[in-house]
Amino acid sequence: MARRRIGVWLLGAKGGVAATAITGLCALKKGLVGTTGLVSELPLFSQLPLPGWNDLVVGGHEIRDVSLSDEVRRMHEISRVFDTPLLDQCDSQWQQVEKEIQPGSVLNVGGAIEQLASAEVRALRESPREVVERIGSDIQSFAERHDLDDVVVVNVASTEPPTPTEMLPKRWAELEKTLEGDNESPLPASALYAIAALDRGYPYVNFTPSLGSALPAVDELARLRGTCHMGRDGKTGETLLKSVLAPMFAHRHLEVLSWVGHNIFGNLDAQVLDDPGNKQSKIASKDHIVGPILGYQPQTRVSIEYVQSMGDWKTAWDHIHFRGFLDTPMSVQFTWQGCDSLLAAPLVLDLVRLTACAHQAGAKGSLSFLASFFKSPQGVETSNFFEQFALLTAWAADPGSH
Amino acid sequence: MARRRIGVWLLGAKGGVAATAITGLCALKKGLVGTTGLVSELPLFSQLPLPGWNDLVVGGHEIRDVSLSDEVRRMHEISRVFDTPLLDQCDSQWQQVEKEIQPGSVLNVGGAIEQLASAEVRALRESPREVVERIGSDIQSFAERHDLDDVVVVNVASTEPPTPTEMLPKRWAELEKTLEGDNESPLPASALYAIAALDRGYPYVNFTPSLGSALPAVDELARLRGTCHMGRDGKTGETLLKSVLAPMFAHRHLEVLSWVGHNIFGNLDAQVLDDPGNKQSKIASKDHIVGPILGYQPQTRVSIEYVQSMGDWKTAWDHIHFRGFLDTPMSVQFTWQGCDSLLAAPLVLDLVRLTACAHQAGAKGSLSFLASFFKSPQGVETSNFFEQFALLTAWAADPGSH
Amino acid sequence: MARRRIGVWLLGAKGGVAATAITGLCALKKGLVGTTGLVSELPLFSQLPLPGWNDLVVGGHEIRDVSLSDEVRRMHEISRVFDTPLLDQCDSQWQQVEKEIQPGSVLNVGGAIEQLASAEVRALRESPREVVERIGSDIQSFAERHDLDDVVVVNVASTEPPTPTEMLPKRWAELEKTLEGDNESPLPASALYAIAALDRGYPYVNFTPSLGSALPAVDELARLRGTCHMGRDGKTGETLLKSVLAPMFAHRHLEVLSWVGHNIFGNLDAQVLDDPGNKQSKIASKDHIVGPILGYQPQTRVSIEYVQSMGDWKTAWDHIHFRGFLDTPMSVQFTWQGCDSLLAAPLVLDLVRLTACAHQAGAKGSLSFLASFFKSPQGVETSNFFEQFALLTAWAADPGSH
Amino acid sequence: MARRRIGVWLLGAKGGVAATAITGLCALKKGLVGTTGLVSELPLFSQLPLPGWNDLVVGGHEIRDVSLSDEVRRMHEISRVFDTPLLDQCDSQWQQVEKEIQPGSVLNVGGAIEQLASAEVRALRESPREVVERIGSDIQSFAERHDLDDVVVVNVASTEPPTPTEMLPKRWAELEKTLEGDNESPLPASALYAIAALDRGYPYVNFTPSLGSALPAVDELARLRGTCHMGRDGKTGETLLKSVLAPMFAHRHLEVLSWVGHNIFGNLDAQVLDDPGNKQSKIASKDHIVGPILGYQPQTRVSIEYVQSMGDWKTAWDHIHFRGFLDTPMSVQFTWQGCDSLLAAPLVLDLVRLTACAHQAGAKGSLSFLASFFKSPQGVETSNFFEQFALLTAWAADPGSH
Repeated sequence: MARRRIGVWLLGAKGGVAATAITGLCALKKGLVGTTGLVSELPLFSQLPLPGWNDLVVGGHEIRDVSLSDEVRRMHEISRVFDTPLLDQCDSQWQQVEKEIQPGSVLNVGGAIEQLASAEVRALRESPREVVERIGSDIQSFAERHDLDDVVVVNVASTEPPTPTEMLPKRWAELEKTLEGDNESPLPASALYAIAALDRGYPYVNFTPSLGSALPAVDELARLRGTCHMGRDGKTGETLLKSVLAPMFAHRHLEVLSWVGHNIFGNLDAQVLDDPGNKQSKIASKDHIVGPILGYQPQTRVSIEYVQSMGDWKTAWDHIHFRGFLDTPMSVQFTWQGCDSLLAAPLVLDLVRLTACAHQAGAKGSLSFLASFFKSPQGVETSNFFEQFALLTAWAADPGSH
Repeated sequence: MARRRIGVWLLGAKGGVAATAITGLCALKKGLVGTTGLVSELPLFSQLPLPGWNDLVVGGHEIRDVSLSDEVRRMHEISRVFDTPLLDQCDSQWQQVEKEIQPGSVLNVGGAIEQLASAEVRALRESPREVVERIGSDIQSFAERHDLDDVVVVNVASTEPPTPTEMLPKRWAELEKTLEGDNESPLPASALYAIAALDRGYPYVNFTPSLGSALPAVDELARLRGTCHMGRDGKTGETLLKSVLAPMFAHRHLEVLSWVGHNIFGNLDAQVLDDPGNKQSKIASKDHIVGPILGYQPQTRVSIEYVQSMGDWKTAWDHIHFRGFLDTPMSVQFTWQGCDSLLAAPLVLDLVRLTACAHQAGAKGSLSFLASFFKSPQGVETSNFFEQFALLTAWAADPGSH
Repeated sequence: MARRRIGVWLLGAKGGVAATAITGLCALKKGLVGTTGLVSELPLFSQLPLPGWNDLVVGGHEIRDVSLSDEVRRMHEISRVFDTPLLDQCDSQWQQVEKEIQPGSVLNVGGAIEQLASAEVRALRESPREVVERIGSDIQSFAERHDLDDVVVVNVASTEPPTPTEMLPKRWAELEKTLEGDNESPLPASALYAIAALDRGYPYVNFTPSLGSALPAVDELARLRGTCHMGRDGKTGETLLKSVLAPMFAHRHLEVLSWVGHNIFGNLDAQVLDDPGNKQSKIASKDHIVGPILGYQPQTRVSIEYVQSMGDWKTAWDHIHFRGFLDTPMSVQFTWQGCDSLLAAPLVLDLVRLTACAHQAGAKGSLSFLASFFKSPQGVETSNFFEQFALLTAWAADPGSH
Repeated sequence: MARRRIGVWLLGAKGGVAATAITGLCALKKGLVGTTGLVSELPLFSQLPLPGWNDLVVGGHEIRDVSLSDEVRRMHEISRVFDTPLLDQCDSQWQQVEKEIQPGSVLNVGGAIEQLASAEVRALRESPREVVERIGSDIQSFAERHDLDDVVVVNVASTEPPTPTEMLPKRWAELEKTLEGDNESPLPASALYAIAALDRGYPYVNFTPSLGSALPAVDELARLRGTCHMGRDGKTGETLLKSVLAPMFAHRHLEVLSWVGHNIFGNLDAQVLDDPGNKQSKIASKDHIVGPILGYQPQTRVSIEYVQSMGDWKTAWDHIHFRGFLDTPMSVQFTWQGCDSLLAAPLVLDLVRLTACAHQAGAKGSLSFLASFFKSPQGVETSNFFEQFALLTAWAADPGSH
């Protein structure tokens, strides 16, 4: 059986997560590094026909006017990540990917993101329909140019402010009509990318808290086109720990009184989140984990602060105040010191491989078995990491089952 | 159906854990407190015929010459636990339990424990066989005096030094013979208590790292007598967190490089563990969790220090150094501030209720479904807390299945 | 020489700090506790004629309709502070102090505080001048009733929002005129209390970030009346540590890149600070320490969150990111777990004793030698705790020198 | 006035601290880095005739058979320190220094260090006198070869086990005689190096807890030869914080109940300290700080563990349990994450400059004004960092005063 060639289409293709995924993929292709951090390399998946590293071809959209190699080298300097020899060997790969990156859209993304965009991108005056057309056509050309069997579109762009979705139609036929007008659609770029991809039959994965494919009408579109999607908001650090620790309190019948989390970091993502609107999307996504796991709502506080010197190193302090037997108050604190892009990038590669495999096996609609990768998994009730991981394990045993 | 009356026989009956369990049980009987911290009060068990608080009668063995109420009031002062009104209402209960407490044994328990014992206990010159006889007879009298349907014996005494068990016979018939001699048996008190209880058909639970019922020959004895047992070493704090967090690293394919844990506390348990021999038992029990869950052995260090001012407040700092994608080193630290006796006592009550229920349902031998309560669960492979909890869930659904 | 009798007049007399100071003073009078936490009991001051515990008489103003003993018992329950025997012995003292507490003023204190006030206090329709008259007369009656040699007025009330002070006159003669009008003066209650006290020759100490005696015109008033004052914002926890640690970085030529502080607590003070206006005063006071000590301004972030379950236990996490030799980034984190009222109350007693002593020795204007007690010491440049403490040491050696 | 040329003679010249100092000095000479981390670059010293970077020439002794550039590159890989461009520019400097490094001595250094030594060094069979002669002659040849005005000898070698010094003579004339015999002198290499340097008039600085120049007889030798010395044990991290924080507790009359410190790191220094004998020297040096500052001795615990993965990153967790007003227990914890060699190396360069300057100004005997650099400053009572720093400030104002 000939190997299938899979496109990896990154939205926000020169951001920290994308740049790390691209550099890491280069290192994997050249055999320069091991597979630590890649979930899809667990023995659990060894029997699945996942695409190999050399079967993946990268392209994407980007709104900023920057160079991929500059971005990677800046991360290297500021955050002390990537070994120098690794960087030296990836130069030609960056050049190659650079050619496959097209200008993105800033429709309804809010001022904090808009101001990052190049003059060219800001000058675009497109209707939602035109955005969908252009984006879709970019992806399809890419697929044809490289003779790809499938393209998995992954949103790793900056977090948009919340979209008011209550008034939006629940059916695709209705939603589609709203794309035509000039100014009326509240759909942000993340949703238009999703529509563009799914409408042409490509899977879409939303690694951010932005709207993406979360609307029921967009899920319907995916099913109509026989393709699949999942989101939202990759679970890489503090929230991962929450989804792991909260079940312990529940199982031990310890009452959580309050759970406070304070996050600091200094990359571009943090800078955008410094805007109150964009921050609201992120905090909403981080702050709904604990209550459902516990079965009651303790007081929770999540804060995120842009601290420039931290670069890509997200440091989170969580203070969990709980009550044990005879109402005795106790506490546990943790400090997480993780490098955000380095945590996210392997999961992006995992999601591409698993999604491509599921699509090939006939999956349609939202991929609930991927819940453990997300803070707010679409279509999945449980926030308990281990219950979510059990979905992944079950799927791996029978990928056609989804 | 008439309620069954269950004895709770505590070894180390005036130590912090026992005193807290006795006081807590009093509070539960009088309806002074809620059920926070009691696993057996989770909805999971609501259909099971667990003994009610008023069905439990407490007695035990103790080697020290102290008064129960003094011990509780000292904990109140030093560790700021128990509300004053609660204490005021438990006085008569302590007096009642006090009458049911018999002198224990210090055979082979090591110098650190021996020196805590009363002159009376130290003056006893018994052979192992005599200890077993006396202990068993104490428990049986207690059962008869109170017309009990069953007695669950729980070891919450100080940690003994490790026992060399390699040379001990694997079969009960052989082991029994070694009890006769005067000085030859290396069996420590914890094992003799286990033998005494099981030989008369009573279940035995070992909440400490001491030997207890861990020998194959003792397990055989339990099966021969149609009774059950479990151990060892209650999982209340730092190790609980280890068994919860380690699976996260495994599932995310993050490589743990080192896991360092440093524990400080100042109660009697800590004082005994300040002795190198006794400490060795404890550390061995705490330090074998992470490797099996991960599937490889990172460098681990566990230390325990007696810090008098901390009283019953066990504070643990853990530093986990791990490696993510592209070999990027990251870390997570946690600080656990838990009150040891208040964490352990409800689990002791849980174990009594669950064990009594299982015994009634016909369970024989070691109760593997209780694994989640222990650091080193006898007869269970997995150290993953959530896999252990799944055993408990399965049993709750069908208690006769064990 | 006859002992001088000194009044302790507390603004916010039933708040946590005041209630703790009153209860602590009772315990000191009865010899129930040692002097831990009292700076004025250091050997440094042993030669000074400080008032003894039995020379102090307490009264104050309060805007809420609560009882002192209820407040103390609530702190006991929620925050697990004060021993029960101590409380039992202070009942008559609380009754006595209760009689000396008069209704306060809520003029210009902002909505968050206003809504805490009793109907009686809210119904008062006084001009600033009337407030000053009433307050001053309350204090003077108290002094006469108890035949006091001096009264030290201490503000331990909730934090007011910032007052715009740029337009206010710099001279007392001018400022005094602004008190007459009805609605025109922006002076908040804290400043009116200060004016009332100083105008009658009593010293005033501002333990909060509110305006208090900080205006130059009010300082002039103090000097005109031959009395003294000091403020603002008692330095009890996180900021104390900042003023201690920042000099270390300066002396070792380590470059602080960012200093992030996150505070959580749940008492009434925290509840008032949950209001953005009031929070702003507090954060401004906490956030100007590090830059002046270092000689350059790193990025700093200070946040405060109301977390109800924490009660009086203020927990602060600080993350200090710094750069060493060859631009190597390093960090230090600390977690402070202090009981706010128990840290503040002894300093209030210290300030009363030291201020009374200085006043007697002829001090006029702001008492710069008390700088080490405050986050924002009036009239003192240095934020370095040890330089501030050196001022105290120098004064103790020669109290007439100020 | 012609610039004075100063030799920097490093004992343990290829260890982490030395290698970092050498690399950092290279970077400073080439103007590649700023002066962060260098105390001698504070404005405080701007008027002093300190030697410039280009006036310093490096040599030293080393017992291992390794290459300097290999050592630096290994640190770069394991601990992620030094920028790659920096390393690329220092190659020729390493080669140059490499030529100036002579074989050291392992006399009485204990097994843990001995086993690190090259076959050549281990094969040496020298009497103490012969060691002193060879070492002294090496240093002097170096001075002559480079036409140096002075040579400051700095011990940055691994920590030796404690030396029993009670029986050693207090006078140099007596001690000198003990060098003659073959096996009788207990003096370890660190003391012989000190004697060798001082006997020829060169200053000696002991940056380690080893014996070095601590004996009264050796101090007498320094005075006899008109030279100076100081030690011991550079204060770079956890102990620095102790000497900064403990005064805060003292000044606030807060009672420290216990102070626990747990250190983990993984460089060669840590590996040697994994030996119980060598560890004892270090812990003794770290554990005598707090008591003298407080004026009473709380329970203290200091532990150090070799954790390989940490490399040069020393992480220390300290838990300080203290008591405030009304005996309320509170706590503060800190986590220090510092890179050991990067913290130590600039202090080594500082000590060379300041010592050379003091020697030129006529200083004799131990240099107490350098106390703030050391954990156990010879001849200085106070452990309070700020009191120690005041000694440095006073000296800087009048360097001839010492």
